[in-house]
Amino acid sequence: MAVAELTTPTCTKQGLRSSEVFYLSAGTPSFRRLSFRPLRRTHSSRISCSVNQTAQAPVAVQTKDPKSNKPECFGVFCLTYDLKAEEETKSWKKLINVAVSGAAGMISNHLLFKLASGQVFGPDQPVALKLLGSERSFQALEGVAMELEDSLFPLLREVQIGIDPYEVFQDVEWALLIGAKPRGPGMERAELLDVNGQIFAEQGKALNAVASCNVKVIVVGNPCNTNALICLKNAPNIPAKNFHALTRLDENRAKCQLALKAGVFYDKVSNATIWGNHSTTQVPDFLNARINGLPVKEVITDHKWLEEEFTDKVQKRGGVLIKKWGRSSAASTAVSIADAIKSLVTPTPEGDWFSSGVYTDGNPYGIAEGIVFSVPCRSKGDGDYELVKDVIFDDYLLKRITKTEAELLAERRCVAHLIGGGVAFCDLPEDTMLPGEM
Amino acid sequence: MAVAELTTPTCTKQGLRSSEVFYLSAGTPSFRRLSFRPLRRTHSSRISCSVNQTAQAPVAVQTKDPKSNKPECFGVFCLTYDLKAEEETKSWKKLINVAVSGAAGMISNHLLFKLASGQVFGPDQPVALKLLGSERSFQALEGVAMELEDSLFPLLREVQIGIDPYEVFQDVEWALLIGAKPRGPGMERAELLDVNGQIFAEQGKALNAVASCNVKVIVVGNPCNTNALICLKNAPNIPAKNFHALTRLDENRAKCQLALKAGVFYDKVSNATIWGNHSTTQVPDFLNARINGLPVKEVITDHKWLEEEFTDKVQKRGGVLIKKWGRSSAASTAVSIADAIKSLVTPTPEGDWFSSGVYTDGNPYGIAEGIVFSVPCRSKGDGDYELVKDVIFDDYLLKRITKTEAELLAERRCVAHLIGGGVAFCDLPEDTMLPGEM
Repeated sequence: MAVAELTTPTCTKQGLRSSEVFYLSAGTPSFRRLSFRPLRRTHSSRISCSVNQTAQAPVAVQTKDPKSNKPECFGVFCLTYDLKAEEETKSWKKLINVAVSGAAGMISNHLLFKLASGQVFGPDQPVALKLLGSERSFQALEGVAMELEDSLFPLLREVQIGIDPYEVFQDVEWALLIGAKPRGPGMERAELLDVNGQIFAEQGKALNAVASCNVKVIVVGNPCNTNALICLKNAPNIPAKNFHALTRLDENRAKCQLALKAGVFYDKVSNATIWGNHSTTQVPDFLNARINGLPVKEVITDHKWLEEEFTDKVQKRGGVLIKKWGRSSAASTAVSIADAIKSLVTPTPEGDWFSSGVYTDGNPYGIAEGIVFSVPCRSKGDGDYELVKDVIFDDYLLKRITKTEAELLAERRCVAHLIGGGVAFCDLPEDTMLPGEM
Repeated sequence: MAVAELTTPTCTKQGLRSSEVFYLSAGTPSFRRLSFRPLRRTHSSRISCSVNQTAQAPVAVQTKDPKSNKPECFGVFCLTYDLKAEEETKSWKKLINVAVSGAAGMISNHLLFKLASGQVFGPDQPVALKLLGSERSFQALEGVAMELEDSLFPLLREVQIGIDPYEVFQDVEWALLIGAKPRGPGMERAELLDVNGQIFAEQGKALNAVASCNVKVIVVGNPCNTNALICLKNAPNIPAKNFHALTRLDENRAKCQLALKAGVFYDKVSNATIWGNHSTTQVPDFLNARINGLPVKEVITDHKWLEEEFTDKVQKRGGVLIKKWGRSSAASTAVSIADAIKSLVTPTPEGDWFSSGVYTDGNPYGIAEGIVFSVPCRSKGDGDYELVKDVIFDDYLLKRITKTEAELLAERRCVAHLIGGGVAFCDLPEDTMLPGEM
């Protein structure tokens, strides 16, 4: 990574990693990645906190200036190491850089510890965590970093905290965009789309400018499909297919409800798809899902329940939970984000698939292009994925897919000003926010 | 476990597991375990929610009567399975039963998902979670159980929720006692000892009556050392050495502070001990701790820092964190509980040890008997442990150990009425609650 710090890496439309581009073509650097970078910013070179590890002599600890926007290594994570020089870490993979926005929030408070523990990227994958927060939450970010220190995770080799995405996203290979403004009292969905759209436009630009060119992005902050669309449209040098909107919690909930109804344990449910938007127009698919390898409709003969109650059960889960528990479902959301990552870095089991909201250009289903739509995916475990072609449709499923597609097209019109589409025109017919979400 | 449901198992002082006792000597059941069971209670046999797994026909889901004290299987966890009949689970270990009190609290909200994910007990160990809450928190318990459902953890095969420890602790092999009353405004430590002592006396009696005879108990609720003492004294048929007071978060923090000062990564610090009470009299030991295999005092030559600042840094960590983060350190506490369990179920690395608050009878250090005191331990990974004899003392260390020992003896006098020691006499000199804890 030392080279990347000294020079400005190139992103190509092919999405090569900055290090790959750079080590191959360091002689002819292109500055295309800077095209979205606001001119007012001046970024000094990133501070490297690595020290040669010499236990005999105490080393001065890097202190952080809280007024600075620059992310810096935190506490014990400034006292680092040469992973290749140490006997026990020689077999480890190359350090992976993971950015998390909304890092001081409750979902992150669950997720960060999962990422650091090795259960997401694996037991031989050292991790650097880059925490993005706001000015208001900066002290809380320090608190999170302190708790990560106190947890002594062997694989967690770097923690940086910051409030400027152009600094925090530097060289990241994963960006988990959880932070978003919650809907204020009386705020309409159109207004929320605009407020959060601004954030995701800025973060898209920052990713485009400084992240690894093949960065994988998972958008969690609502409205996540259209936020992901805004983000990818503002990052033209990163492959559009690298952007995901999280619908995995919906998929997990759908599997659980099918298991409950069928009287089986949830591990017997496979091939569950969430189609479309992460909103009340989403379509949990019981036509293609399977239980013990059999079509759901053969196992659950109460088709009235499937058509009239199942979707409602999945969608109202968050609302029921917030009533019972008094808090939103941070823990299971974090689990589903971890699941979404694992689905991309481990091969999908034979015959099965997973749902993710992805860019629709070139999709085989006839869904409108140019939106982010949840569909069934398979991965070889290389971070990439392909769309599953082997699915069936009936009139009932198609009708509902058309409705969620129409909503996403309407949302796109609302944010036209943020995606280079001219003047926005917002005609969202109703509030489709999922209960229990903000 | 079917046999245990039909009959009342025996606990022997040797601490055999109920199933072992039972399958070996089912002909001569003893009722000694019932000696602490209040007569007013009448316990119906436990409801078994297991159904033969037949995916073809939907099975009625067990519904729960919220007014009942009985813990029942929750939601999808009622739709269970024969672990031995399924191809993929045939190689799994026998289901382990884990009770968690304070299950609706924030520490549990982190811990339960770790236990369910397999990262604590291992990837081939199916887990049953038994959540103990209060009448007030019952709905929140349901919320937690719902989030566990939605997480689709393959190893999590049973979840039960309840508010009666005599029901929830049935057959448990691990009891993680996190729940405790927080200190109210103006409440003195003596009063807190009494209020929480009542809870832990009751839970000790319940464990004695219904848990597995070799149950391992980790007490987290404060004041945890004396709560653990109360608990074990009320469970005379469970081996006293099975009871632990959690000092692992203190140990983890001590390692982190030593690493920071020495300018090394925390994985280079070993042999860290917390001696004594989980309070401000606790003694983080820098005499026996090592950095890169060398004595700390050889690596950190600033001995003034070691003697005058190190302990303070460890103890004030929770207070600093609560100021930064606005919340107590639930996530890192949960990590340390997971660490404490893993230290008992995996062999301790050669030459290293871990800290735990354990019963002092027969200890090799000359510490007063009959209290729960944190000391260095090693385990073969069988759930049991032995005390480390190979430690050195100097006057400085001994003086501080004497002080924390005196405090624990004073705390014991405060709770004499709860441990069969006659009339309580409370003369605690000062408030020694750790900053940031309740």
